[in-house]
Amino acid sequence: METLIQPRVLKGFRDYLPEAEIPRALLIEKLTAVFRASGFIPIDTPVLEYAEILLRKSGGETEKQVFRFEDNGGRDVALRFDLTVPFARFVAEHKGELYFPFKRYHIAKVWRGEKPQAGRYREFVQCDFDIVGSDSAAADFEILQLMKTSLDAIGVDTCTIKINHRGIFNRFLDRIGMREQSEEVLRAVDRLAKVGEDEVRSQLEALIQDRVSAAAKAQDILDYIRGGDSFEETLSVMERMAGGPSEGAAEDIGRMRKIRAMMEAAGIEQFFVLDPSITRGLDYYTGIVYETFLDELPELGSVCSGGRYDNLAGLYMKERVPGVGSSIGLDRLLAGLETLGGKTEIKSFLDAEIFCLDEELMPCYQKLAVELRREGIACEVFPDPRKISQQYTVAEKKGIPFGILLEKPEAEKNILTLKDLRTRETFEGITPEKAAEKIRAELPITVRPR
Amino acid sequence: METLIQPRVLKGFRDYLPEAEIPRALLIEKLTAVFRASGFIPIDTPVLEYAEILLRKSGGETEKQVFRFEDNGGRDVALRFDLTVPFARFVAEHKGELYFPFKRYHIAKVWRGEKPQAGRYREFVQCDFDIVGSDSAAADFEILQLMKTSLDAIGVDTCTIKINHRGIFNRFLDRIGMREQSEEVLRAVDRLAKVGEDEVRSQLEALIQDRVSAAAKAQDILDYIRGGDSFEETLSVMERMAGGPSEGAAEDIGRMRKIRAMMEAAGIEQFFVLDPSITRGLDYYTGIVYETFLDELPELGSVCSGGRYDNLAGLYMKERVPGVGSSIGLDRLLAGLETLGGKTEIKSFLDAEIFCLDEELMPCYQKLAVELRREGIACEVFPDPRKISQQYTVAEKKGIPFGILLEKPEAEKNILTLKDLRTRETFEGITPEKAAEKIRAELPITVRPR
Repeated sequence: METLIQPRVLKGFRDYLPEAEIPRALLIEKLTAVFRASGFIPIDTPVLEYAEILLRKSGGETEKQVFRFEDNGGRDVALRFDLTVPFARFVAEHKGELYFPFKRYHIAKVWRGEKPQAGRYREFVQCDFDIVGSDSAAADFEILQLMKTSLDAIGVDTCTIKINHRGIFNRFLDRIGMREQSEEVLRAVDRLAKVGEDEVRSQLEALIQDRVSAAAKAQDILDYIRGGDSFEETLSVMERMAGGPSEGAAEDIGRMRKIRAMMEAAGIEQFFVLDPSITRGLDYYTGIVYETFLDELPELGSVCSGGRYDNLAGLYMKERVPGVGSSIGLDRLLAGLETLGGKTEIKSFLDAEIFCLDEELMPCYQKLAVELRREGIACEVFPDPRKISQQYTVAEKKGIPFGILLEKPEAEKNILTLKDLRTRETFEGITPEKAAEKIRAELPITVRPR
Repeated sequence: METLIQPRVLKGFRDYLPEAEIPRALLIEKLTAVFRASGFIPIDTPVLEYAEILLRKSGGETEKQVFRFEDNGGRDVALRFDLTVPFARFVAEHKGELYFPFKRYHIAKVWRGEKPQAGRYREFVQCDFDIVGSDSAAADFEILQLMKTSLDAIGVDTCTIKINHRGIFNRFLDRIGMREQSEEVLRAVDRLAKVGEDEVRSQLEALIQDRVSAAAKAQDILDYIRGGDSFEETLSVMERMAGGPSEGAAEDIGRMRKIRAMMEAAGIEQFFVLDPSITRGLDYYTGIVYETFLDELPELGSVCSGGRYDNLAGLYMKERVPGVGSSIGLDRLLAGLETLGGKTEIKSFLDAEIFCLDEELMPCYQKLAVELRREGIACEVFPDPRKISQQYTVAEKKGIPFGILLEKPEAEKNILTLKDLRTRETFEGITPEKAAEKIRAELPITVRPR
């Protein structure tokens, strides 16, 4: 006898049992419907790519986290760690086959060998949507609107989308002569919520060589970051502090006003906060940037983030393709929703279980199942002649609302007994059509995910 | 200036552009709906597992094809090469959390480093559905029925599902004293369609030590394999040649009759052929086995195969869990459907494009889009003020049926011009509600995948 292998998954990985996979699948379906209704279409790219393609631009941190190896053909390959880099490669490779503006969504797994921690896994699903080939404010708006519509569609109604503009921030840094330290400034500013204003102030002051102006400049940065009390006021602060004679600044401010006007026209302006402290670390963003926080669970971090980039595929081709996009951290969001208790546990998609009372009648049960499915009822036949109490227990554990009983004398007359397993109410001697009607009446389509 | 990296995918891998990914996504959605309506629920497992878990049972061929490497933590890991082995591990690991009979579907990618050839890739999507924890004929039937329903749902109506029973075949080999060479016999028999009867006969004779009986035994095997002219006749041949006093044989023959009775009750018996030459190489099958061939493209090979196994998770636990399941080679099937020309090319899910005639009106366009979506119309706003002829071209290339034009004087009165981009018919001065009504009337829900 062979020894048994212990069944287990790798550290940082997990199985999705039906009670976890069903909500995830339903979430993905809802998002998919929203994307399609706005003209986004799906693509797919390989999970495995040349390491050179995936890793060229990324810093050391990503490189350490990536699953990278030599394949049987001696190629240096890696599992993708996001959906953006493969998309950039895809756009460069297929630009002649695509129509621009090109709007795609991609919902798929990515892998990062991060230190596993609560709610963080090494394999997780990302959901990206981007518009490439348009530099317009309308495209910026469309992504922001879709973030809101997507989150609505999956029942996340209390969240705040914080937006900012990286280009305007950079011009502000130019004006105060700190553009060269922009990375350090961004890093310091990014920690504002975590470490507080005093800590950030002293970090900023430490960045400034000229001790005379250090306090004033740090204060400027903090003032800029703080903004005003409304979208318009904050934008005015940004305009005043970054504007001046620069053409670009006026244009960018104008773009933010255009986006705001579209939000108002669409009736969604109240869900967006202009927050100059949002910067997104990644340096490929050049325009608008955004992050989304659940109002009841801000500590979860951003569940939907992104921004505008000038030159998505610059590593792979000479043409500049501007784009704007966003990414939902689906598994993180699911974990958040679970914490908030908004989860409805769906353990089955079935409306009815046809119990096996007499194995000889199996052909009758199967015929009945076909008839009921034709009537739109999702049903199954219990395949084994187990004790009826056991069959009930399984049906109840699966959360199936109706049971159907069919015995010999009834079977010949094509009549059955329908039992509501939740209330124990019983309807005897009815036809399959009548049973289907009763089930449909009890279960409005909306509660039955299909 | 950095040198550009050539954008390319690994050998044997491919991108799915929208025109390939949309049909695949729609196929998956249709299959999902069918599975759910019969009580199958989704699970997910990691793409990456311990190599020990994935490879223990597989022979040398699989091992050579698998993507296997040492991860950053020094673990010997591999990408899954099918969905069955991970499912076996899953069942063993979570048996206490599942309700049996447990019916799951799993549609996901698998990887094999096969020699790339036309229509064969190293990354492909499998679609598995299994029932574990029931040894009944009803479960066998349910999988067979679901194969037929699934293929129907995705428009494959001319196919033949060939079924056989490995247990009966083994008993027949027992009777003629060739059970020990069963693997070689299976291998020879498996090539019948490819190399013809004479070649198989001489291969079979070569397997038989006793030269006196060699010809007769080879003939017996060929007779058994040929069967009869109908399900019942073939089953009689099998019964006569494998039956005799053995209890088990009678039971297995009885099971086949039960399955047949259920098929007749469900009205699907004509789609199944009892074919004793179908054996499925894999030695974990112990009962019924099946393969599915497109009638118009048999050379594609089986697009949906599987069978019953006595002991799915035997490598990982002591309890025996019987099961029965099937697997659709989704990408192979898609390639076949494409060859047969049955592909409807869907390049967009949109009903209407709102053209950008005047950038200043962008908020009006966005407001209109919100109104139309509320009316159930999938639409987008063209984000850039490009020449109208260019905007038309993009909309046509995307296959969007309607265009909407809105200029300043109209915009104030909330009336628009609707244009059928296919017929060039134009409706002027209508309200958004009227436009939505016209679009809905032209595009029945059924042709709009959602």
